[in-house]
Amino acid sequence: MKQLAIGIDLGGTNLKGIVMEPGGRHRHLTRVPTEAEKGGKRVLENLLALIGVLIEKEGGSEAIRGVGIGTPGFVDRRGVMVGGAANLPGWVGTRLFEPIRERYGLRAAAANDVTVAALGEARFGAGRDVRNMVLMALGTGIGGGVVIDGRVYNGTHGMAAELGHITVDVNGLQCNCGARGCVEQYASAPGIVRVARLEAESYAGTTHSELLTLVRDNAHGFDSKTVYDHVARGDPFALHVNEVVCGKLGVAVGIVLNCFAPDRLILGGGVMKAGRVIIDTVSRYTPRYCWPEIRRRCEIHCAQLGEDAGVLGCGALVFDALTEEGDERSREADR
Amino acid sequence: MKQLAIGIDLGGTNLKGIVMEPGGRHRHLTRVPTEAEKGGKRVLENLLALIGVLIEKEGGSEAIRGVGIGTPGFVDRRGVMVGGAANLPGWVGTRLFEPIRERYGLRAAAANDVTVAALGEARFGAGRDVRNMVLMALGTGIGGGVVIDGRVYNGTHGMAAELGHITVDVNGLQCNCGARGCVEQYASAPGIVRVARLEAESYAGTTHSELLTLVRDNAHGFDSKTVYDHVARGDPFALHVNEVVCGKLGVAVGIVLNCFAPDRLILGGGVMKAGRVIIDTVSRYTPRYCWPEIRRRCEIHCAQLGEDAGVLGCGALVFDALTEEGDERSREADR
Repeated sequence: MKQLAIGIDLGGTNLKGIVMEPGGRHRHLTRVPTEAEKGGKRVLENLLALIGVLIEKEGGSEAIRGVGIGTPGFVDRRGVMVGGAANLPGWVGTRLFEPIRERYGLRAAAANDVTVAALGEARFGAGRDVRNMVLMALGTGIGGGVVIDGRVYNGTHGMAAELGHITVDVNGLQCNCGARGCVEQYASAPGIVRVARLEAESYAGTTHSELLTLVRDNAHGFDSKTVYDHVARGDPFALHVNEVVCGKLGVAVGIVLNCFAPDRLILGGGVMKAGRVIIDTVSRYTPRYCWPEIRRRCEIHCAQLGEDAGVLGCGALVFDALTEEGDERSREADR
Repeated sequence: MKQLAIGIDLGGTNLKGIVMEPGGRHRHLTRVPTEAEKGGKRVLENLLALIGVLIEKEGGSEAIRGVGIGTPGFVDRRGVMVGGAANLPGWVGTRLFEPIRERYGLRAAAANDVTVAALGEARFGAGRDVRNMVLMALGTGIGGGVVIDGRVYNGTHGMAAELGHITVDVNGLQCNCGARGCVEQYASAPGIVRVARLEAESYAGTTHSELLTLVRDNAHGFDSKTVYDHVARGDPFALHVNEVVCGKLGVAVGIVLNCFAPDRLILGGGVMKAGRVIIDTVSRYTPRYCWPEIRRRCEIHCAQLGEDAGVLGCGALVFDALTEEGDERSREADR
């Protein structure tokens, strides 16, 4: 029997959907606006409409086993949004599964957006050949996703792997979560900009730096890509900023390795377009904050799938949910 | 068919063994000296002899499905000691499974000693009613154990949950692992003594403190129990030491909650004989280092089983390994 899954990755700007086979082959890639500013009900309506579009493109829902959804925030086992998702006003409290079942007769599975990206990388990308994998996604914030024995680990109420809020400096920068010194304040895209601005105030290097001039002249005229473009050119102040950023990120990575001892830790997200320089610098700092054998045996790699990781993970989530149900049925039968 | 497991908890001083039923009922509790100082081969010989004693007490090995072992250090999936276990010279490199199969025809399963204690608490103690649980055991060091969906999580090469080496202060006390500011330096039994000594040098409180006099007069004449006995009596310096200890422990607990978002975090180990005061103080600090919703929804409890957690977890490990094999067989059959 042909088995297909619909995968939908819910982003702040766009909803992205595919129809996927178990091996990851997919078709009908479709993007529609999320319209987050119009509130949670509108977002849900757009999500439901996108499912309809994908079913129509596929020519019917007969072979579709279910819908997998990746969403910002925390989603519990019953598909209810229980928290997070600050960029989606009115999204908390939304019930995801019932309207999909009612309108299309399809089952659904859901997880946090970084968690589904981790599953995508684990199944089809940088974690293809390992059992246990952690993804840290460096973007507007820092998110985490954990795959254990090939399956997503959600934690209670879908809240696992808030890795961006690991404390790396108890007296550090104030974070919008209420805590101080969260790694997200230093190594997310806005964090890198923040570090560059702060370091520019005190930087004492004497070699000419184009980036330093740029930051001092116009503290709002650059972003994290500007910083890493200058790192690539060997700009001395940019290299200094990279050390500070990766020094803080190295604390968090060391802690994550001590906690999970995954076969592989993957760094992904928009910031990682900078590539190997971040992996290399972080890898120099991590051993200071990590049990030596763990550091030796856990690999740190770049993500491979870019923005496709999420939607592929959403598809995989559907097939995993079906297998789990099968396992539970066979355990029941054994009794 | 009657099903029994042998559980053996390998400690630095004693090997402790039981014969256990699936529900946790057990008999023939036997302790023999580990003789760690005589080297890894002798320890293995003592472990094998203990298995023989338990089989004899049971009157034969017919109903025994396997042997579960909890050991200091890291043990991989094939039962090979791959690291850690500093107190057991010559233990690394030991192969645990083959000699048990050869001498007794029994299968074996093994995990880190704190990991099996976590499984014991999860199955029969403080985590009985939850899916996901993390144990932090505060003793000579600080160890961690993780149970996910009711099963132990070992990480690569059995190294998961080195929670004692979470960095809580990058400029903090030097740890014997090579890093600085590991939580173990502050909140293990020797860590609490260390904090008391250091704080006694600078403490400026003017109310009379018996503990302060004791520490200043004889810096080696007290232990962590002395500190917490004085906490119980309201000694002002002891209360101050408790705040410092739990302040550091609170950072690590917050980080662990952010990483795993377990249903429940359990604090155990000898230090926790001090009881609720540590839970209460840590619970005041943790919200500073943890995503607010996670802190609200994850409970922090005391361990319930004391020193029995380990050996009960060893027994449970055997039954879990058998179930997993069953699951894998039924998945194979489905294909």
